[in-house]
Amino acid sequence: MADVATKIKGSLQGNGTAGVPSTSAFDPFVTAPNPLSAANAVGPVQANPFSHDTAAALNGAAFFANQSGFQQPLPAQVDYFHSLVPLDLNHQKNATIFGFPSWVYKAQSSKDGNFYALRRLEGFRLTNEKAIRSVQAWKRVCNGSVVTVHDAFTSRSFQDSSLIFVTDYHPLSKTLAEQHLGAGNRFQGRHNTHIPEQVLWGYMTQIANALKAIHASQLAARIIDPSKILLTGRNRIRLNACAIMDVVQFDTQRSLAELQRQDLVNFGQLIVTLGANQPNVMHNPTKAMEHFTRAYTAQLKNSVFWLLNGLQKDQERNIDIFITGISSTLMSTFDSALHLDDQLTSDLSRELENGRLVRLMTKLNFINERPEYEHDRQWSENGERYFLKIFRDYVFHQVDAQGDPVVDLGHVLMCLNKLDAGTDEKITLISRDEQSCFVVSYKELKKALESSFQALLKPSASRRLH
Amino acid sequence: MADVATKIKGSLQGNGTAGVPSTSAFDPFVTAPNPLSAANAVGPVQANPFSHDTAAALNGAAFFANQSGFQQPLPAQVDYFHSLVPLDLNHQKNATIFGFPSWVYKAQSSKDGNFYALRRLEGFRLTNEKAIRSVQAWKRVCNGSVVTVHDAFTSRSFQDSSLIFVTDYHPLSKTLAEQHLGAGNRFQGRHNTHIPEQVLWGYMTQIANALKAIHASQLAARIIDPSKILLTGRNRIRLNACAIMDVVQFDTQRSLAELQRQDLVNFGQLIVTLGANQPNVMHNPTKAMEHFTRAYTAQLKNSVFWLLNGLQKDQERNIDIFITGISSTLMSTFDSALHLDDQLTSDLSRELENGRLVRLMTKLNFINERPEYEHDRQWSENGERYFLKIFRDYVFHQVDAQGDPVVDLGHVLMCLNKLDAGTDEKITLISRDEQSCFVVSYKELKKALESSFQALLKPSASRRLH
Repeated sequence: MADVATKIKGSLQGNGTAGVPSTSAFDPFVTAPNPLSAANAVGPVQANPFSHDTAAALNGAAFFANQSGFQQPLPAQVDYFHSLVPLDLNHQKNATIFGFPSWVYKAQSSKDGNFYALRRLEGFRLTNEKAIRSVQAWKRVCNGSVVTVHDAFTSRSFQDSSLIFVTDYHPLSKTLAEQHLGAGNRFQGRHNTHIPEQVLWGYMTQIANALKAIHASQLAARIIDPSKILLTGRNRIRLNACAIMDVVQFDTQRSLAELQRQDLVNFGQLIVTLGANQPNVMHNPTKAMEHFTRAYTAQLKNSVFWLLNGLQKDQERNIDIFITGISSTLMSTFDSALHLDDQLTSDLSRELENGRLVRLMTKLNFINERPEYEHDRQWSENGERYFLKIFRDYVFHQVDAQGDPVVDLGHVLMCLNKLDAGTDEKITLISRDEQSCFVVSYKELKKALESSFQALLKPSASRRLH
Repeated sequence: MADVATKIKGSLQGNGTAGVPSTSAFDPFVTAPNPLSAANAVGPVQANPFSHDTAAALNGAAFFANQSGFQQPLPAQVDYFHSLVPLDLNHQKNATIFGFPSWVYKAQSSKDGNFYALRRLEGFRLTNEKAIRSVQAWKRVCNGSVVTVHDAFTSRSFQDSSLIFVTDYHPLSKTLAEQHLGAGNRFQGRHNTHIPEQVLWGYMTQIANALKAIHASQLAARIIDPSKILLTGRNRIRLNACAIMDVVQFDTQRSLAELQRQDLVNFGQLIVTLGANQPNVMHNPTKAMEHFTRAYTAQLKNSVFWLLNGLQKDQERNIDIFITGISSTLMSTFDSALHLDDQLTSDLSRELENGRLVRLMTKLNFINERPEYEHDRQWSENGERYFLKIFRDYVFHQVDAQGDPVVDLGHVLMCLNKLDAGTDEKITLISRDEQSCFVVSYKELKKALESSFQALLKPSASRRLH
């Protein structure tokens, strides 16, 4: 099971090589790291109050609370959310993108108990009620390459006038800026590695997927920035923070068509920036394109060039025309997604076995060594339960010739799988005093387990009638 | 866990609605049906000799062995394969497609222990060694919409001269003919339901994906027939039996370009046949197209019409041009695949928890009630093990006010999750004689579990040195 974490990191790049099984050694007793780190569960996230994720995040909260500027404690409640945990990597006020300082928190909803991401725009005053209603259209955008928007409201819980956006929470995600442009590092932009062409194509098809859904909903993304695109799985990205400009700049004079064409330009600039691994490369577009031309194929360069000219009126330009142009690489990315589906399905079918084993072991433990049943202190030692008891010893308490414990998960799993299947195979069970020996089939043991378990389930009233 | 089987049936059709969580009731003690039936694990399939799948298949073998014409027992061994199980639904010789009667078996490889599908062409004599070498190119076609070919060889194990193709085995798959054209039913073609346009688009994008990979490898599918396309998951299809014609009709006079254009025509005919739900609809093409035009949009009809004209020389026609034409629906299918990835990843992260619980319960059972350790018969009752023993009672052997057993999987999972996380939460453990009572934290219990388990792992030699 230890290699599942490696395996499920199937890539979503534009070739068909995803999903090659890892060859790492199998050590059944190595507990996988927090499964969310491998699996990047998609939001809304089920609350597991005991998970390490929460603990780590809470440590993070303590860390942030000690920073200057964070002396002010977080509110216990923001509308129908509680248990806020800050997610920002630095605590400097930054109003560059939205025009207001913005902060991101993980929080639990008291409506459904799931975790969400809250983005707070500090000091925003809503002057037009219609502005916030524009979020309704965004709530209907359900696309695998867009972070889903769930709600937006104003709040005074932070002792100011704040605008709050509620979106899916993607645990352990990074932004493209952090991944590729060194954002958050001290030596920003110095040691970034070149993004392979296939990965860049994978990003392009996913952003095209996002923009197709957004533009078809009569909306525009308005923000396509490396710092606002989440990497939520290997090579899997999602546009984030899209609905915000529609509220904050509700009174913009630009038409929807113009904003959508601006999306194409921003899309092109994003790809050039990522290709150059330099956050500010678009300050010198000529040099940026020169670098891009050297590093990538003509096909990729031409696609990006077409996007950068999105505002030109020389020809019709929209996202559908762009998608037609990249259909060949789109098919490759689609094939990668199919391969990833296969890998995940195969991993899942293996893991579902574990669910069956948990239920089986639980039943066995409900019965074995039960101190008393119906005032009978010998219940768990008598009749068919006696076989289950010495079967338990057979599974867990074997010793080798030297008398050393046999600690073999393989043996345990094999026995439990056979018990679950109720095979006809017979095994020899030996009593603890080694005076008796019984030949029993797994089928008989399974029957004993089931009937003993059913006895536990029977309500006492019905038992007393007998 | 019972609803996982429902959940993972995310659809792969051309819209974005896949992956909506099921709302079926959660009953933790209902064991999911054989996980392979839900998950359709992709091949090569790991061998689990205890699974019901094998048992069912073996029953199938017994069934077939009783049919007339099947009196001849299957060979115990075919080259490096053993444990053959017939997979055909009927036992009538049929040479329509390949020119030779063909049979399909599931078999286990003695090289890697995995299951594969073997297709046998009865009575085939290889006259040209080069013919079978053409399979090499097929082995390199690794595409999510093509059943992967692994090997081909001739065999005399069936008391004749047979040609054997080895491919991935996809458990519980159906053919499109069985699913949509009533193949295998007595009232063939009478009660088939209309295929929705979105599903048909999903099939088209997947076959286009397959043909793109095949044609790019300088090959042609040559067979695109409803009876030779596997449905391996919900709306997920794969071209099968592709390499066979290249061997059987090795001496064909047709050029590769012509065969590839014929693929386009066969592709179009497949879609018309599926759209009409009638296996023989292409016998009357005009009527077939009339029906298709009534039932589906102009966009779909035009795409199919373009394919049907694949042999016309009026314009260049190849699979890449076709893909460009369907790029918009291709993007929708891609988005569905992303949604399915999300659903599977989320399900998997939940199931990975079970793997951790299996390991944890196994450790606890290795320690609890161990009869003897280092000649100490009280080991499992003494010191920190005593707390683990009464913790076991706390988890599994609680009774309610009436003295009835508390059989609550939720309580068990909560306790085990807290133990796994080693939380600071304290619980009160009571001795069996109710004379003593201990307040212990999960953190302390976790430490006790780990150190006791480490003691079991220590080799006796090193223990004796102390």
